[in-house]
Amino acid sequence: MDVQLLNNIHSPADLRALPREQLPALCDEIRAVILDRVSQNGGHLAPNLGVVELTVALHRTFDCPQDAIVWDVGHQCYTHKLLTGRYEQFDTLRKQGGISGFPDPRESEYDAFIAGHSSTAVSVAAGLARANTLNGDNHTVIAVVGDGALTGGMAYEGLSNAGQSKDRLIVVLNDNHMSISKNVGFVARHLANLRARSGYVKFKHGLTKFLHKVPLIGKPIYRFLLRAKQRMKYALYDSSTMFEDMGFYYIGPIDGHNLRDLTAAMESAKQIEQPVLLHVDTVKGKGYGPAVQNPDTFHGIGKFDVETGKPAPSGNSFSKTFGETMVELASEHNDVVAITAAMKGGTGLSPFAEQFPERFMDVGIAEEHAVTTASAMATKGLVPVFAVYSTFLQRCFDQLVNDTAILNNHVVFAIDRAGIVPDDGVTHQGIFDVAMLNAVPNMTVYAPSTLAELPLCLKQAIYGTSGPVAVRYPKGDELPCDVEYTPDGHLYTLFNPDGEKPKTLLVTYGRTFCSVMNAAKRLNENGIPVAVLKLTRVKPLPKGVISLALGYYRVLFFEEAELAGGVGEYFGSRLVQRGFAREYEIHAIKGFVPTCKTDWGLAQVGLDTDGIYRAVAGEACTSEETDE
Amino acid sequence: MDVQLLNNIHSPADLRALPREQLPALCDEIRAVILDRVSQNGGHLAPNLGVVELTVALHRTFDCPQDAIVWDVGHQCYTHKLLTGRYEQFDTLRKQGGISGFPDPRESEYDAFIAGHSSTAVSVAAGLARANTLNGDNHTVIAVVGDGALTGGMAYEGLSNAGQSKDRLIVVLNDNHMSISKNVGFVARHLANLRARSGYVKFKHGLTKFLHKVPLIGKPIYRFLLRAKQRMKYALYDSSTMFEDMGFYYIGPIDGHNLRDLTAAMESAKQIEQPVLLHVDTVKGKGYGPAVQNPDTFHGIGKFDVETGKPAPSGNSFSKTFGETMVELASEHNDVVAITAAMKGGTGLSPFAEQFPERFMDVGIAEEHAVTTASAMATKGLVPVFAVYSTFLQRCFDQLVNDTAILNNHVVFAIDRAGIVPDDGVTHQGIFDVAMLNAVPNMTVYAPSTLAELPLCLKQAIYGTSGPVAVRYPKGDELPCDVEYTPDGHLYTLFNPDGEKPKTLLVTYGRTFCSVMNAAKRLNENGIPVAVLKLTRVKPLPKGVISLALGYYRVLFFEEAELAGGVGEYFGSRLVQRGFAREYEIHAIKGFVPTCKTDWGLAQVGLDTDGIYRAVAGEACTSEETDE
Repeated sequence: MDVQLLNNIHSPADLRALPREQLPALCDEIRAVILDRVSQNGGHLAPNLGVVELTVALHRTFDCPQDAIVWDVGHQCYTHKLLTGRYEQFDTLRKQGGISGFPDPRESEYDAFIAGHSSTAVSVAAGLARANTLNGDNHTVIAVVGDGALTGGMAYEGLSNAGQSKDRLIVVLNDNHMSISKNVGFVARHLANLRARSGYVKFKHGLTKFLHKVPLIGKPIYRFLLRAKQRMKYALYDSSTMFEDMGFYYIGPIDGHNLRDLTAAMESAKQIEQPVLLHVDTVKGKGYGPAVQNPDTFHGIGKFDVETGKPAPSGNSFSKTFGETMVELASEHNDVVAITAAMKGGTGLSPFAEQFPERFMDVGIAEEHAVTTASAMATKGLVPVFAVYSTFLQRCFDQLVNDTAILNNHVVFAIDRAGIVPDDGVTHQGIFDVAMLNAVPNMTVYAPSTLAELPLCLKQAIYGTSGPVAVRYPKGDELPCDVEYTPDGHLYTLFNPDGEKPKTLLVTYGRTFCSVMNAAKRLNENGIPVAVLKLTRVKPLPKGVISLALGYYRVLFFEEAELAGGVGEYFGSRLVQRGFAREYEIHAIKGFVPTCKTDWGLAQVGLDTDGIYRAVAGEACTSEETDE
Repeated sequence: MDVQLLNNIHSPADLRALPREQLPALCDEIRAVILDRVSQNGGHLAPNLGVVELTVALHRTFDCPQDAIVWDVGHQCYTHKLLTGRYEQFDTLRKQGGISGFPDPRESEYDAFIAGHSSTAVSVAAGLARANTLNGDNHTVIAVVGDGALTGGMAYEGLSNAGQSKDRLIVVLNDNHMSISKNVGFVARHLANLRARSGYVKFKHGLTKFLHKVPLIGKPIYRFLLRAKQRMKYALYDSSTMFEDMGFYYIGPIDGHNLRDLTAAMESAKQIEQPVLLHVDTVKGKGYGPAVQNPDTFHGIGKFDVETGKPAPSGNSFSKTFGETMVELASEHNDVVAITAAMKGGTGLSPFAEQFPERFMDVGIAEEHAVTTASAMATKGLVPVFAVYSTFLQRCFDQLVNDTAILNNHVVFAIDRAGIVPDDGVTHQGIFDVAMLNAVPNMTVYAPSTLAELPLCLKQAIYGTSGPVAVRYPKGDELPCDVEYTPDGHLYTLFNPDGEKPKTLLVTYGRTFCSVMNAAKRLNENGIPVAVLKLTRVKPLPKGVISLALGYYRVLFFEEAELAGGVGEYFGSRLVQRGFAREYEIHAIKGFVPTCKTDWGLAQVGLDTDGIYRAVAGEACTSEETDE
């Protein structure tokens, strides 16, 4: 690739030193680098291609890291990373030990905060700006928020609070019309109105510059002019925007690919001593035809062919099996309703949405609403199935407890991306759902181990279980399993090696079962006989499994979830209450897991076949040594 | 009290049969009954007095329970309860075994859903309405939502989704100017604009009635007139409201104390085949002077004197001690910031807010924003202390994990109302915070046992701990303690009876410690020697406590929190991993706890002195028998 400018930019200061004429060429280089890298490593493409000029303008106007940029979700931070000293490492994007696909202040001082989940940036920026005010620091905090993020309620909490402050804060609304494709009405409609009513605001750049140079009087005059212009516009079109009601000074919409307008607008915003909302209109996927045409497909994507725009063929996955099962169930039953929070494709629900549009709901990035509205539907005899990534279920604890579990409403949670999740990093690991669900009364949890077992569990959850019920499964394909296994889909299965009753029992659930079976086979072959207890239902524990475990001398629990509050701890606490007086160990995940591939991640936490083998054969440390 | 009408109303049908002229007298009776009862039992007064006419109009217009009314939060459902067959039981309001202060479908089929936490009603109503559509049911669903609830993000998720549906749904916005007193800008400003621009909409009631009787043509004409009127109004004043951008048909504002206008507006709303937002202007506390003058004080209140409006004197409380400590700390340190989510008074922060307004933030009912904005402030060297009720912390799990714990930001959580909470019932028990916090990596949790210990823990949390840290304490006063005890405030204390090392160890934390000590005293006096291990820090467990427990033959853990995921389970799982081979029992709370007084609730879950005594002396069942 022919990179001549970007390789010389090691910090925003280098960017600011670049002559203005070279900026379009720089933007081209940035796009080429992003396209090249994402096509190989996977990642977020369309949102990143859409904010190249926006990001260049931000780093030309503001002085980071003293000024702070907070990226909402972080799907659009690649240009920012390239301009803040991370071009050399950009090959390692989303690789273990490499640079994260999301902002992370531990990676760079230019990343003001961590991100990964939607709709938090305004709250973060408001906190930083408030602290600046209290600390007497006059720097500016900028939040960059996509319109899609405005479908999440937390964004309103942030905007409403930030707008009434007197702090130096600019919210850049990156309007890439995402909320339209999501068909979530309000944001789309409001922003479309704003775009339609005035055309783009063209800034008289020369005048701006001139006035800003005139001491004392210049800026106030400029501000007056700006305000007068806005006033006139409103008189002609509209009275006020929602953002003005919130207390923001509204500027926009600005053409998000016109560097001159962007910079002028940002310069103006910097002068205004109240929170500003800068509405910028961008094209998702800008510069790469296939991404402009299919921004949804190219939002987050795996490896693909740049020439054709064709993604590498995807194999089997739990998501796909889930989607197929849902279609099958909906064909037979009228009561099944599918709900997603902006993850139709990711959760495998696209075929369902096409065939049963009436019974499909995409609520936008609104997990809380999803759970509560599902729970209400359940009281009317429907069976709502909310398909949600484990990491995003973290948003719904209160809705699970108060709005679902108290009334014991039959809502089905299809928890995708549970356990180690590849590539996306620390904010996307699906490791806290088990502890969350364990604490929710009346909740039942199934954890299928194989693709074939998922439909059995799902049917059992939908038609064989009352109250709130979850089915939890990982991203991607099942793990290889060296032994024959007839899916259970319901309670548990015990595997004893032929001919003898061993002293050691391995307990596990979910896909880890496959690795445990592989390890057990090897252990048995090597003269260390072990039995395996596979839990298909992990909450409540199937009757008899504690009694069963009491018959062994050594019990090891393998769990692909956070240790604290997990099933292993519960199992242990039940053992001790039942008088178990032998060896018990839990091998689970302890705290946060960084960016990794699934295999590497599982090995890292000791849950691959080798790790399990070593744990039993005594070559690994047990959890005893690590904490009180 | 002179009740002549209300006692004859056993269902909404009776209300509808009442001549219209008698309705004002009925409203007077309802107000008198509510005032009398709340002054004795405590409860929500001002919001309930504000919606008497609104509720009467709803039950005159709609046909419940086929039509469904969903009350947001539930602070305003007393009139509804009085009109739906619960007048006779109204004396038992908020008493154990009595009727709940919140809606609950298990109590009455007229309560369409459970409530207690804010901003959920539109999501619930949207789900019910969607189900009605899918089921071919033509009935109407009504959500009644206060303007204060619009400070919570989930309300926007609900509105945005509901507005774009085609379902039969009416959102009654009960605008009692609550969001103004909360000083949360956006909602207040937007609603004030709406109120100001048009005056009240006066419905031509006769015309409405006439047109509705004309078959086929009447209703369309009426709807056209209504629409034309709205259109004209907008041409004169404004283009569109936020609610119209959301997809609602907007009607309002209506005088919320004018029964004729209310009924006419509701009749119209019923005809419109799209989601309707009915904006109703009410006076909080209407009919009782002191409540009108101080709607905040009379929002939720304990026993008070009706004549004077003076509340019964409140004694010591953890909240009060917390507030005093915060003032003391802020006087000495510039970095302390206090945050509340609409609970300034309840959390004891009023004195702090008065003395340090710059360092005090009330974010409205926006717990998620509170946590994330606090975490951002922490990165700038401030020490944000978020005071929040345990039950509302349930809203913040994702913000705790992703926005706080990953970066290990030093945010202090002052968790009030932890454990059994009197009067408010199942939705307000503070029993899930421990399990939640246990699952959050890097989190430290202190649990003071007495008022004197709270400041020590708080100081330790603020200045002696890094990362996210919680201090958890109950509502009201400390429990009586028969033994001398020097506050620890830091780690743990072991109490052995004089002269001997007993075989039994009782482990506990928080206020339950006092009851455990009382029970221990009695046990020791009765020849059953026990030691007591009091944990002040419950996460991470202080070094040495597991080793210590290993030295006893019988260990009992007493925990005022949900069993699943609690400290007792963790303690047990550590014991078994360390080879403990004796008796272990956990006595904690199992699932939801209904409306109760604190004493009764503690006795019910076996955590009062008697219960603890019996558990040790062998007269109680242990948790072994109840589950696998």
